[in-house]
Amino acid sequence: MTIHDVAKLAGVSVATVSRVVNENKRVAEKTRTRVEWAISELNYAPSVLGRNLRTSKSNLLLVLLPSISNPFYTEIINGIEDTAIARGYNILLCETDSNPKREAIYFNLLRNRLAEGIISMDPSVNKNKLLELAESYPVVQCSEYDTESPIPYVTIDNEQAAYDAVTHLIESGHRKIALINSDERFLYARQRQNGYEKAMEEHGLPFHDEWVYNAEYLQFEAGQKAIRTLLELNDRPSAVFAVSDVYAIGALKEIHRLGKKVPEDIAIIGFDKITFSDMAFPTLSTIAQPMYEMGCISAEMIMDEISGILVNSRVLEHKLIKRDST
Amino acid sequence: MTIHDVAKLAGVSVATVSRVVNENKRVAEKTRTRVEWAISELNYAPSVLGRNLRTSKSNLLLVLLPSISNPFYTEIINGIEDTAIARGYNILLCETDSNPKREAIYFNLLRNRLAEGIISMDPSVNKNKLLELAESYPVVQCSEYDTESPIPYVTIDNEQAAYDAVTHLIESGHRKIALINSDERFLYARQRQNGYEKAMEEHGLPFHDEWVYNAEYLQFEAGQKAIRTLLELNDRPSAVFAVSDVYAIGALKEIHRLGKKVPEDIAIIGFDKITFSDMAFPTLSTIAQPMYEMGCISAEMIMDEISGILVNSRVLEHKLIKRDST
Repeated sequence: MTIHDVAKLAGVSVATVSRVVNENKRVAEKTRTRVEWAISELNYAPSVLGRNLRTSKSNLLLVLLPSISNPFYTEIINGIEDTAIARGYNILLCETDSNPKREAIYFNLLRNRLAEGIISMDPSVNKNKLLELAESYPVVQCSEYDTESPIPYVTIDNEQAAYDAVTHLIESGHRKIALINSDERFLYARQRQNGYEKAMEEHGLPFHDEWVYNAEYLQFEAGQKAIRTLLELNDRPSAVFAVSDVYAIGALKEIHRLGKKVPEDIAIIGFDKITFSDMAFPTLSTIAQPMYEMGCISAEMIMDEISGILVNSRVLEHKLIKRDST
Repeated sequence: MTIHDVAKLAGVSVATVSRVVNENKRVAEKTRTRVEWAISELNYAPSVLGRNLRTSKSNLLLVLLPSISNPFYTEIINGIEDTAIARGYNILLCETDSNPKREAIYFNLLRNRLAEGIISMDPSVNKNKLLELAESYPVVQCSEYDTESPIPYVTIDNEQAAYDAVTHLIESGHRKIALINSDERFLYARQRQNGYEKAMEEHGLPFHDEWVYNAEYLQFEAGQKAIRTLLELNDRPSAVFAVSDVYAIGALKEIHRLGKKVPEDIAIIGFDKITFSDMAFPTLSTIAQPMYEMGCISAEMIMDEISGILVNSRVLEHKLIKRDST
């Protein structure tokens, strides 16, 4: 299906079809209606075909994420999609599994102008490649970012948020507080560990290496395994700060299975405020990240970048949510 | 970055680069290594750029799904990705929100040869458009399908699975059984309602219209709302079959909030066996769908179709999982 077929069916010139496609005002209303009818009749796809090759306007954005299994990303994506669609853009979601080879393939979609910009949520993306890409194409980072790089990002203050979570446990009377962290290759993991250590130090509380558990995968099972290890320690913690609700929910389930009670035997606070955190038993205290808003703002940022508008990084507010697990 | 740059850097002809890219055996090992080095050095993307335009080999598959918020799709996607990547394909995930306009944009990516095939999990896709697309391009349906259409699909026997779930409740001593269903525009919803009605009828149990609740959105809140409505009935059911674990988990939480006990006051069985179903309290009885396997098989099917191999639809086995909620 080509622009010629549309022109023929509509009984107009190719130039007229092109003017309609490119929203040129100099087309009579009646002619425009006729061309639009022909476009729809023939399933002609100017936005991805003609316009893409001629003007680089594919109206597609790529969203890179490590894994769609984490509900944290799901809620960000809802924000991205709602915002992008309102401005005439569509989204392609690219799961990278934090694999540089897979990332490279998606980067090429941008180089080849099949997409106009990338929102990357992938923490372990190849930093140099991303930076190189950002020199020529619109790139925004969401949640994870590189402190050294000029790529604009939207995030929260992870260190302060972790500090607030641990301080809440301390103020509830806990002195032995463990940390279930994820992989330290993630910036957020390092920042949240800093916040944990800062809160403990400021309150004069000692902490041991054995109270910090680094989980391998972001899955419930990892949270279950982590809490089993922590409960077996001689110097057992009375409270746990988990850097993800997913770990915390796994831990809740395992504590329950072992016949212990939350928060009486051990208190737990998570991080993110995913929808499931309110379905857990008991309901999970957590740090709310404004996920939907992070999505909306990163979409606005990338579309502004595409339009040639200079954008600034944004650090959004988090919020302590006290529920039944603490 | 063009094939000419690669040829220049590798010190070979363009034809040699093309032979390496197209995996032609008639290239000396040493030359191949040199060309591959140049390709990687220059970030040249033959699979999406050169090959795409010349041979329609983009090595990309589109996966259409209504919403990534449902963990059911997440596990299918894991199967699709693992299988596709093992055969050198990458995936673009397209969230359609069951909106025909958004579907049409993604269909065009196939028409324009930016992708080689579509796996559609979208139940409310425009049937005629999908059928038209499938006449010229590889299309497979996963989970949802059209009984009248020749498009190959992979699914389970939804009616039998629902029948098994309701029969389990009946065998546990329940006679008043309610159904929390989703929108009847979904084939699976209609099939599961048939299974529910069949099981009730075969066991001589009456059922009332007011025991069938059709939820609007696939969210926990919809399950909470549904169970509140059912518990307020004069002729209150003693057990509930929910066609999705998401509804069932919402219902569990709400029953608990109302100070009632599961399964003593009301028993619940869900459907899907999403990971969260084992994290709920009490753990949720459910019908296991082989989600990961459904993903693997639909990926095999679409890649076979792309290779010109005729594929047959598959109906996979489901399994009743008895846990603490029944």
